[in-house]
Amino acid sequence: MSKEVFDRGLEIRKKVLGAEFVEKAFAAADDFNMPMQELTTEYCWGACWGREGLSHKTRSMLNLAMISCLNRPHELKMHVKGALKNGVTKDEIREVFMQVAIYAGIPAGVDSFRIAREAFAEVEKAG
Amino acid sequence: MSKEVFDRGLEIRKKVLGAEFVEKAFAAADDFNMPMQELTTEYCWGACWGREGLSHKTRSMLNLAMISCLNRPHELKMHVKGALKNGVTKDEIREVFMQVAIYAGIPAGVDSFRIAREAFAEVEKAG
Amino acid sequence: MSKEVFDRGLEIRKKVLGAEFVEKAFAAADDFNMPMQELTTEYCWGACWGREGLSHKTRSMLNLAMISCLNRPHELKMHVKGALKNGVTKDEIREVFMQVAIYAGIPAGVDSFRIAREAFAEVEKAG
Amino acid sequence: MSKEVFDRGLEIRKKVLGAEFVEKAFAAADDFNMPMQELTTEYCWGACWGREGLSHKTRSMLNLAMISCLNRPHELKMHVKGALKNGVTKDEIREVFMQVAIYAGIPAGVDSFRIAREAFAEVEKAG
Amino acid sequence: MSKEVFDRGLEIRKKVLGAEFVEKAFAAADDFNMPMQELTTEYCWGACWGREGLSHKTRSMLNLAMISCLNRPHELKMHVKGALKNGVTKDEIREVFMQVAIYAGIPAGVDSFRIAREAFAEVEKAG
Amino acid sequence: MSKEVFDRGLEIRKKVLGAEFVEKAFAAADDFNMPMQELTTEYCWGACWGREGLSHKTRSMLNLAMISCLNRPHELKMHVKGALKNGVTKDEIREVFMQVAIYAGIPAGVDSFRIAREAFAEVEKAG
Repeated sequence: MSKEVFDRGLEIRKKVLGAEFVEKAFAAADDFNMPMQELTTEYCWGACWGREGLSHKTRSMLNLAMISCLNRPHELKMHVKGALKNGVTKDEIREVFMQVAIYAGIPAGVDSFRIAREAFAEVEKAG
Repeated sequence: MSKEVFDRGLEIRKKVLGAEFVEKAFAAADDFNMPMQELTTEYCWGACWGREGLSHKTRSMLNLAMISCLNRPHELKMHVKGALKNGVTKDEIREVFMQVAIYAGIPAGVDSFRIAREAFAEVEKAG
Repeated sequence: MSKEVFDRGLEIRKKVLGAEFVEKAFAAADDFNMPMQELTTEYCWGACWGREGLSHKTRSMLNLAMISCLNRPHELKMHVKGALKNGVTKDEIREVFMQVAIYAGIPAGVDSFRIAREAFAEVEKAG
Repeated sequence: MSKEVFDRGLEIRKKVLGAEFVEKAFAAADDFNMPMQELTTEYCWGACWGREGLSHKTRSMLNLAMISCLNRPHELKMHVKGALKNGVTKDEIREVFMQVAIYAGIPAGVDSFRIAREAFAEVEKAG
Repeated sequence: MSKEVFDRGLEIRKKVLGAEFVEKAFAAADDFNMPMQELTTEYCWGACWGREGLSHKTRSMLNLAMISCLNRPHELKMHVKGALKNGVTKDEIREVFMQVAIYAGIPAGVDSFRIAREAFAEVEKAG
Repeated sequence: MSKEVFDRGLEIRKKVLGAEFVEKAFAAADDFNMPMQELTTEYCWGACWGREGLSHKTRSMLNLAMISCLNRPHELKMHVKGALKNGVTKDEIREVFMQVAIYAGIPAGVDSFRIAREAFAEVEKAG
């Protein structure tokens, strides 16, 4: 493992998903899933999100589009919340998901809109 | 059909994919696939790309990410060329496809890089 | 937007999914998802389902097969109920999902059968 | 293996894909892929296509829709040809693939239309 | 149907998923889904799992990898439990799902780890 | 980057895919795709394949199953050749792909068998 990449990843992951969420994930990890926590932090958040060349806002929009296509509702909801933190507006999220509806099909679009509304409601409630 | 939306779509489609390509597609269309040409032009290019709220450059990056996940190489190559026309740089295309590799998996990333290089070579050759 | 296509779509959507369901969807829509409601109604229900050339019963069977492959359980359940409204029998739904099991794999088939049984139970209960 | 189901499957497979094609597939099979030839013939063509409850024409349309969603161009081309043999008209194939475009996304639709046109051309050439 | 293949399949299915689970599935089956129960038992568990050439332990690991990629959480949880019965250790399950994370993408990996932990907890609770 | 993980990855990648292939990939890399070459070598081959807990033979079988499901023919052919190098026999490859046919559907199985036969032929020709 590269400690430098891991640390950069940890910082970005906390910024996007919330420090409390990330700390709880590590605290709850055991022998079984700790290696996955580490891989995700270093590889996904450090070696990818930590790169220059695209803003975090753009990376968030790409993630909303991709995770909709990949059909992973848990991850999608988390990244809708992360997108708001990265400055993507609700209007922009709508545009991303309408483009999903055209390119990945209406059911993918409908699911993504429903998940976005759930995410918005949870964010407001946590307020 | 809404003539206004169709016309806006036709204009955008020509701008992104090239007027010659689009005119050839319509000229080659027959009874079998003309309705699909019209649907694509009106809904995909008019009702989606024609919306405000995201720049064409951002829409191109979203398409690269989505079409990689959807695993459609013909369409991906076309949209790599379109992305260059919309001002996405090669460095940005690399960043999109590295993010694809992380979120959709290494094989999706490898395929997208190979297709991008084919697209670049064809664009240079066409000069 | 083409008002004619939208109106035809609205009528078909109400017939297949139930007028009450569709009216509630529009009543609950806000600035965020109203454009998606409109796109779905015009594009999916008007410009596709509104075409001649295939009966609504056949379109329902195609949807059951496709939405199983696309792995969208919320939409699948809704379209199982819609298929019953369009005259697809339970025996025919079984045949579609057995063909899904062979072509999209056993897990896709098993999931679709479970969702169909949930849909049947909800329809009976709503009676 | 059930010889009865296998024989029914072999008959249907020859009817839909052509006797010559199927005989060549078995003649070219070796120790490596003969078990797959047998599995496909018995389960896919015998235990699924051999069931009552849906006409072969309807099963062909379901296959076009599913194999488009599953993104398998070799199999799709073969089943476009099979669909013509089972009495699905070109107009009906267009309708299936436009519904694919709406539910599985524009790139899936575009790919399917291109493959259908290749299949039609090959059928005409073969006379 | 081949009674011999069905019986072999029934025995293996009970061994991997638990006799009680399988007996309940058949007892709860009705006209609608009994043919699917039979197809799954004969085709999946008899004609595939019943083959020699790979150990049940290896087949379980292949299933964990495939069902993660196919994104079917209900089936995945059942096969995590089945894998434990077939002698796959928790450490090996972790390795499979980390390989999933690399090849099918981080969201697929994260989902699979979450489902595995739910499966482990249910197994421990059931004692 | 962790030089240690990269170096371990490079060694394994050369062992599985062939030193010549890997050296050519790096030699042909330019500013556009060198970061992807490095990411793949470090994370996929170093941080995943370099882990203990599963033999390379087992990892190869998992890859055949996953890449079939993910529908990536270029990568699949490469990994069929890699599997042979890692000691997976042709009989075992057949078993993996028959399990693919059951779980991911007949078209996935048929495609994988065809690609395996192409890979075998290329390996024999290369002598």
